[in-house]
Amino acid sequence: MSKIYVDLLNKVRENKPLVHHITNYVTVNECANITLAIGASPVMADAIEEAADISAIAQALVLNMGTLNARTVASMLAAGKSANKKGIPVVFDPVGAGASSFRNEIAALIMNEITLSVIRGNISEIKFVAGFGSQTKGVDASESDLAGADSAGQTAKELARKLGCVVVVSGAVDTISDGKKIIHVENGHPMLGNLTGTGCMCSSLIGSFCGAAPNELLSASTAAMMSMGIAGELAYENAGQKGNGSFRAALHDAISKMDAQTFEKRARYNEA
Amino acid sequence: MSKIYVDLLNKVRENKPLVHHITNYVTVNECANITLAIGASPVMADAIEEAADISAIAQALVLNMGTLNARTVASMLAAGKSANKKGIPVVFDPVGAGASSFRNEIAALIMNEITLSVIRGNISEIKFVAGFGSQTKGVDASESDLAGADSAGQTAKELARKLGCVVVVSGAVDTISDGKKIIHVENGHPMLGNLTGTGCMCSSLIGSFCGAAPNELLSASTAAMMSMGIAGELAYENAGQKGNGSFRAALHDAISKMDAQTFEKRARYNEA
Amino acid sequence: MSKIYVDLLNKVRENKPLVHHITNYVTVNECANITLAIGASPVMADAIEEAADISAIAQALVLNMGTLNARTVASMLAAGKSANKKGIPVVFDPVGAGASSFRNEIAALIMNEITLSVIRGNISEIKFVAGFGSQTKGVDASESDLAGADSAGQTAKELARKLGCVVVVSGAVDTISDGKKIIHVENGHPMLGNLTGTGCMCSSLIGSFCGAAPNELLSASTAAMMSMGIAGELAYENAGQKGNGSFRAALHDAISKMDAQTFEKRARYNEA
Repeated sequence: MSKIYVDLLNKVRENKPLVHHITNYVTVNECANITLAIGASPVMADAIEEAADISAIAQALVLNMGTLNARTVASMLAAGKSANKKGIPVVFDPVGAGASSFRNEIAALIMNEITLSVIRGNISEIKFVAGFGSQTKGVDASESDLAGADSAGQTAKELARKLGCVVVVSGAVDTISDGKKIIHVENGHPMLGNLTGTGCMCSSLIGSFCGAAPNELLSASTAAMMSMGIAGELAYENAGQKGNGSFRAALHDAISKMDAQTFEKRARYNEA
Repeated sequence: MSKIYVDLLNKVRENKPLVHHITNYVTVNECANITLAIGASPVMADAIEEAADISAIAQALVLNMGTLNARTVASMLAAGKSANKKGIPVVFDPVGAGASSFRNEIAALIMNEITLSVIRGNISEIKFVAGFGSQTKGVDASESDLAGADSAGQTAKELARKLGCVVVVSGAVDTISDGKKIIHVENGHPMLGNLTGTGCMCSSLIGSFCGAAPNELLSASTAAMMSMGIAGELAYENAGQKGNGSFRAALHDAISKMDAQTFEKRARYNEA
Repeated sequence: MSKIYVDLLNKVRENKPLVHHITNYVTVNECANITLAIGASPVMADAIEEAADISAIAQALVLNMGTLNARTVASMLAAGKSANKKGIPVVFDPVGAGASSFRNEIAALIMNEITLSVIRGNISEIKFVAGFGSQTKGVDASESDLAGADSAGQTAKELARKLGCVVVVSGAVDTISDGKKIIHVENGHPMLGNLTGTGCMCSSLIGSFCGAAPNELLSASTAAMMSMGIAGELAYENAGQKGNGSFRAALHDAISKMDAQTFEKRARYNEA
């Protein structure tokens, strides 16, 4: 495999980027722990009084719409503008886009007001924010969207081109595009869908890798998705038969133990 | 055992009901994961701007008072009314009722404004909302109430009749009544009391079963309590000796692995 | 070892103090579970309408600044005043003090308005609130502060004297001082730093021990830090090789299994 992904993993561990999150209260603990497990340092702070200040000392910002409310939207905008001013990567996770008009308005607002570096979501969310129409069911991808997931590459590429950022579509195969290249990461395991927050954790990993390598957003996002995909496979092999609770612990184990050898042995991806 | 409970478990897995939660930030992650583990789909959304919209696309609504505040109370009312309008089940968990006048007022408000399908709490909380007086100590049942827990059946039945809903009293033996029948579920393990959120998770399971079978609220609530009780027993057998952390993972394991055979072999209940 | 720490552990288990937390949404679940694991009873309630009432029925109050916002600051002040009035211990965890002016102002406000029993933080946070200057990086101790951690004893003692409370500086070696004595607890494991919330959990343990023994704040704080330190060692021995997820479960296991024999065999501390 390309040495670039191993180098990026090493960069995260060496640079220990501080990753500012304004995120939901459902999966925030998982996000903090996965950020630590990959070698970065999480800070969660959503008060309007400090959101901009915290982004200003961070190496990356992750904005996650999971449990959106008026108070934190204002903080997301302030943090996003601060991050843009400082020039650090901003990762946007439009959780549940399409599920309510409020979510749609806020997603549009964030996409208009903030210069985003990476947008990551499932196919329903990404199709929705791309303006292609979708049938979002809560926070999981809809089945009709999943059936058409082979179009993820094109959707990602078009949205990436339109917004001038990297777009990541999570799924059985993950698709990452910067508007020019399309990368497919084949690592992963269906059991990841049985845990809450595996999507949010992907966004935290993207924030961690992009914080460590802000000039390599496409590769950094790819390395992040590989990490989660490989960890999902290892977690299934080590504990999946036991059930969801053991699988969850094993997932965190695998991210914390991720190393060059595992990347080299396990990574499955292709570029188009 | 009655085939009805196995059928209900299968219904949850087949219908994958979307269960909207407005719940506390202490145990919300456990609630989301247990909802996924039983086979349903959780969505947590508490902004007033979207609470009604999200309930309108859900198959059940769970209102949990754990970390109540003025902002989310308004959202609970909006979501509850939306759920009532659509005719989906509303499960109410009056966490800590009796512990402060604020909690008591809000519990009364919710019970007055929303048509509830199921109320679940420990004996202190249920006695309190039933207007029987109680001595709540924080969020756990008080010892004097526990000593009188053999009156749970009568309390549940009277409250169920008064409110026209199913009432579930969690305890060493769980009591479920629709105002006519009283069902006792004997499954469970004391170690469940050593983890935060096992009560909240019961409410999420009730939401999941009721969302899948909205016309069988008594049986659905019973199946939910059986699931948690059996899972507690299995978790203790598999990991209880190790301590609370392993027990927690094993509890999620057991819910995710729950199946017809386990129900048939393990369920212990009786109807009065 | 001194019998006093074993006696304190027994007191927590016997008295089951109710520990009111106003804390952050990142690690709140860990705090609730660790409070239960040591034998106390957690209650998390941050609405201004009930904060004072809940403190009034509690045996200790823990104020944690992790994800501070204007709404919960008001509740912290109300709860703190109620706790002061009732005379129960108040534990303050100034998470991220130094990371933003907002955090600094709120830390100062709490220290001015509330009579604190114990302040616990890492060396960066404690140096900051002590007015000694520091270079906080997010919520983890900065490396330059860690390099000078041998000054922790003096910092703790001076701050304790200045504020008339117990000060706990968490680190590779924990330092506890009441302004007269300085106690060093040598238990612990570096892997504790790989999990989010191990600091917050220490504060919850301090709240649990102080709630059970409000007249022995120095010893109670020491017993709490010993508990976490020993649990970290045991968790590493039992599961550390597997990775962060297994280590986390093992940490909760170890706290729930903590007993006199383990204290006697494992505790490493010295008084100056």
